[in-house]
Amino acid sequence: MIVDTLIHARWIIPVEPESVTYENHSLVIDKGRIIDLLPTDTAKHKYQGTTTENLSSHALLPGFINCHTHAAMTLMRGIADDLPLMDWLQNHIWPLEQKWMSEAFVRDGTDLAIAEMILGGTTCFNDMYFFPDVTAQQAIQHGIRACVGLIVIDFPTVWAENSAAYIAKGLDIHDQFRHQPLITTSFAPHAPYTVSDDPLQKIRTLADELEIPINMHVHETLHEVEQAQANTGQRPLQRLNSLGLLNPSFIAVHMTQLTVEEISLFAESGAHIVHCPESNLKLASGFCPIAQCLNVGINVALGTDGAASNNDLDMMGEMRSAALLAKAVAQDASSVPAMTALRMATINGAKALGLDHEIGSLTIGKSADVIAIDLDHLETQPVFSPVSQIVYAASRQQVTDVWVAGKQLLKQRQLTTVDISALKAKIVDWQGKLSK
Amino acid sequence: MIVDTLIHARWIIPVEPESVTYENHSLVIDKGRIIDLLPTDTAKHKYQGTTTENLSSHALLPGFINCHTHAAMTLMRGIADDLPLMDWLQNHIWPLEQKWMSEAFVRDGTDLAIAEMILGGTTCFNDMYFFPDVTAQQAIQHGIRACVGLIVIDFPTVWAENSAAYIAKGLDIHDQFRHQPLITTSFAPHAPYTVSDDPLQKIRTLADELEIPINMHVHETLHEVEQAQANTGQRPLQRLNSLGLLNPSFIAVHMTQLTVEEISLFAESGAHIVHCPESNLKLASGFCPIAQCLNVGINVALGTDGAASNNDLDMMGEMRSAALLAKAVAQDASSVPAMTALRMATINGAKALGLDHEIGSLTIGKSADVIAIDLDHLETQPVFSPVSQIVYAASRQQVTDVWVAGKQLLKQRQLTTVDISALKAKIVDWQGKLSK
Repeated sequence: MIVDTLIHARWIIPVEPESVTYENHSLVIDKGRIIDLLPTDTAKHKYQGTTTENLSSHALLPGFINCHTHAAMTLMRGIADDLPLMDWLQNHIWPLEQKWMSEAFVRDGTDLAIAEMILGGTTCFNDMYFFPDVTAQQAIQHGIRACVGLIVIDFPTVWAENSAAYIAKGLDIHDQFRHQPLITTSFAPHAPYTVSDDPLQKIRTLADELEIPINMHVHETLHEVEQAQANTGQRPLQRLNSLGLLNPSFIAVHMTQLTVEEISLFAESGAHIVHCPESNLKLASGFCPIAQCLNVGINVALGTDGAASNNDLDMMGEMRSAALLAKAVAQDASSVPAMTALRMATINGAKALGLDHEIGSLTIGKSADVIAIDLDHLETQPVFSPVSQIVYAASRQQVTDVWVAGKQLLKQRQLTTVDISALKAKIVDWQGKLSK
Repeated sequence: MIVDTLIHARWIIPVEPESVTYENHSLVIDKGRIIDLLPTDTAKHKYQGTTTENLSSHALLPGFINCHTHAAMTLMRGIADDLPLMDWLQNHIWPLEQKWMSEAFVRDGTDLAIAEMILGGTTCFNDMYFFPDVTAQQAIQHGIRACVGLIVIDFPTVWAENSAAYIAKGLDIHDQFRHQPLITTSFAPHAPYTVSDDPLQKIRTLADELEIPINMHVHETLHEVEQAQANTGQRPLQRLNSLGLLNPSFIAVHMTQLTVEEISLFAESGAHIVHCPESNLKLASGFCPIAQCLNVGINVALGTDGAASNNDLDMMGEMRSAALLAKAVAQDASSVPAMTALRMATINGAKALGLDHEIGSLTIGKSADVIAIDLDHLETQPVFSPVSQIVYAASRQQVTDVWVAGKQLLKQRQLTTVDISALKAKIVDWQGKLSK
C-alpha cells in the first residue's frame, strides 16, 4: 500500500498506552493521520511511503502541547528580568504594550514564537494575547496547531474598549476560524483581578453554547489571593466557583496558592490546571503542588508562559523543570516520574484543550502531530531508558523532525515554513523600537 | 605584535569587573594566558594572531567551573530514576559500583563526562570519585582543567580498604600530579555519615600542610541531619565545626538543611557552599537557601553533581535552575539576578577551589580558559541583554568554542581532543555490562 509518509524509528513512545516503548517500529501516516504503528520488518513489506524517513537513533513521540503562551511577547524576551510580577507588568510590560501593540507586533512576535516552538518540538500552543485573529493566521501560515484565546479584560486596550467589545470581537474570531482544521478557540478572561463578574457570567454562557474551553490565570501569586480577600472577602477560586466557572471545560493557569480544600473542590469539578513551573519560579510566584493535584485525579498540563517571563518556549525544559520541582515540593523523589512529566507535556495538554480525540498520543486514527528526538548525542548516552533520557537529559536541539497533521514543519533541524532571514530582520527592527 | 590567538567578539563578559559587558572588543591570548582585552578596532592594529577568530554574534566569557561532579558516573546516566537518595544509592548505585568499579570504568566514564562538559562550555571540574589518578590522567589527555578529589570513606571499596589507605593513596596522587598545570587536588571525605572523626582530623591536618581544600557532601538531606542528631546528639555541621573543619579551605556541597544560626556560623568561617539545585530537586533533598547565604557574604558556587542524579553535566542548565529556584525559595523575584548566577558558575567556583588567581574571569594575566556562546539563534533573539539571554534563554548547544589555558578544545562545535566514535563504542559496551 502506498502511503504519504513512512517513518522507521529506533523507538516509538506513543504515550498511550502509558509506559509502552516500542523498539524498531514504524509509524505510518496518510492524509494527515496516523494509520498504522507496527514493527519495521512488517512495515517494510506492507507499506511504501511517498516519503520515507529512517530514524535509526531517534525516538518518535507525540508533539508537545504548550498549554500557556503569550506568543507575541517573545519580542520582549529578556527586556526586563529579575523583577516581581506586578513591578514587571505595571512598570515594564504594560507600558511597552501600550506604546507598541499592533497587528504588526503580534504578527512578527508570533512568527518568532512559532519558529522557536517548532524547533523545540511543540506542535500545538494555547495562546492568550491581543489580536488573536493574527495569531491564528500566523499559525495557519506556518502549519502549527493553535488554540487562540479570545482575550477579555475590563479595561480598554488597542484591541477593544470594554468587556462587551472584547467578547464581541472574540465571537467574530471564533466564527472566522471555526472551519480551519488547525485552529480552535477558547475564551481567555485574563485573571480574576482584571475581569469582573458580569463579563465572566456572559463568557460562561457563551462558552457552553459554543462548546469551547475557558482559560484564565488563577491564583498566580499570594498577593493576588490576599488582595482579593481584602477587597471581596473571597479567595478568587471561591468566586469563580460561585460564578459556575469550575467545570471540565475550565483551564486554570498557574495555581500556585492552593489549600487542601481547594484541591478537592477543583478535582471534583473536573477542571484542568496548566502548570508553568519556570515562570512561577522566575517571578517568585510560588509552587503549584502538582503531585498532590495529580494524586487526586486533576488533569495537569504544562505551559511555558510568555518568553518575556520564562525566557523561552522550551517544552522539554519545562517538562524537566516540572518533574524535578514536583519531587522537591512533594518531598518525594518518586513523585512525577519521567513518564508522568511526558504525559503532562502531551496527552494532558490535549485533554485540557478538549482535543484528546485528535492529538496528544501516537494513536491510530489521530492526527499525525509527531516529533523525532535524536538520542545519539553524547549528552544522552548511554540509553537505559529513552523516556528518562528525553525528560532528564535531552535538550530541544535534539528534536530533528516535526510533523503537524502529517505536514513536515522541521526536517533535519531545518524549518520548512519559516523564512529565517526575513524573520531575523524584523526582530532587529523591533529590538530597536522597543529599546527606545 | 604576533600572538597565539586573537578573538574578535560581538560581546565580552569578563565577569570581573562585575556587570561590565564590552561590545565589539577582542581578547588576546598568548602562551596560554590572557594578555589583553581591548576594542577590536585597536586590537586589529596592535596584534596579529597566529590564529584569529571572528565571532560576530557571540559572547565570550570565562569557562564554567563545575564544582561538584562524580564524572565517571556518567556511564550510569538514567539507570535508576525517580527514587529517594538512600534507595537510589543503596539498592542501585552502590551495588553497580561494587560490581563494575575499575580503572577502565573510571577512564571511560570520565572520558564521556569530559566530552559532555567541553561541549557545554565547562573548562574546569571538581571531582569526587574512585581512582582519582585516572580522572586526572584523562583530564590531562583531553586538555580540561580538574581538581581531583582524594576520596576518603570509612568502609572498604575496590579503591582502598580503610581510611588510612584512602588517605595514603590520596597523598600519593597529590604528589604524582603536583607539577601538572591543569590538575589540582582536594581532600574529599565523602560525607559526615560515612567518615568518622579520626580520619577527618587527619585530613584537616594534612590539608593545612599541603594547602589544598577539603570538599564534602554536607547536610544533603533532612534524613542525614536527623540521623546524625539521633546517633550523636549533634547536627553534622556542628560536628564538623568542633573538628575544626570549617574554614576558608572547606567546601560544603549541597547544604539543603540550614538554620539561621548555621548560616551565620558558616559565613563567619569563610567556608564555601557548592549548590547543586537540579540534583537536590531530583532527589527531593530540599532547597539550599542561597539568596540568604549570598546576602551574608558566603561564597556560593555551582555544581551539577553526577549525571546519574541530574542527569547531565550542563552548567548552563544548572545556572538557570539556580537563578530561577533561588527566587521562588526566597519569595523574591529580584533575588539572584542573571549576573549573580553567572558569577556562581565562574568566579565563585574559582574562589571555592582556591584558583581565582588563575581562572574564573577574563582578566589580563589569568589563564585563557574561555568560551564563546553564539546568541544568533532564534531562541535567544532579540538580545536586549547578553547576560540575561545566556542565563535565562540560551542552551549549551550554543557554546561554539572552548579554550583551556589557550588550547582550543572545541572549535565550531567540534571536539578537538576526543575521538567520538571510539568513545561511543565504549559506552555501548558499558551499557551492555551495566544492564546485566
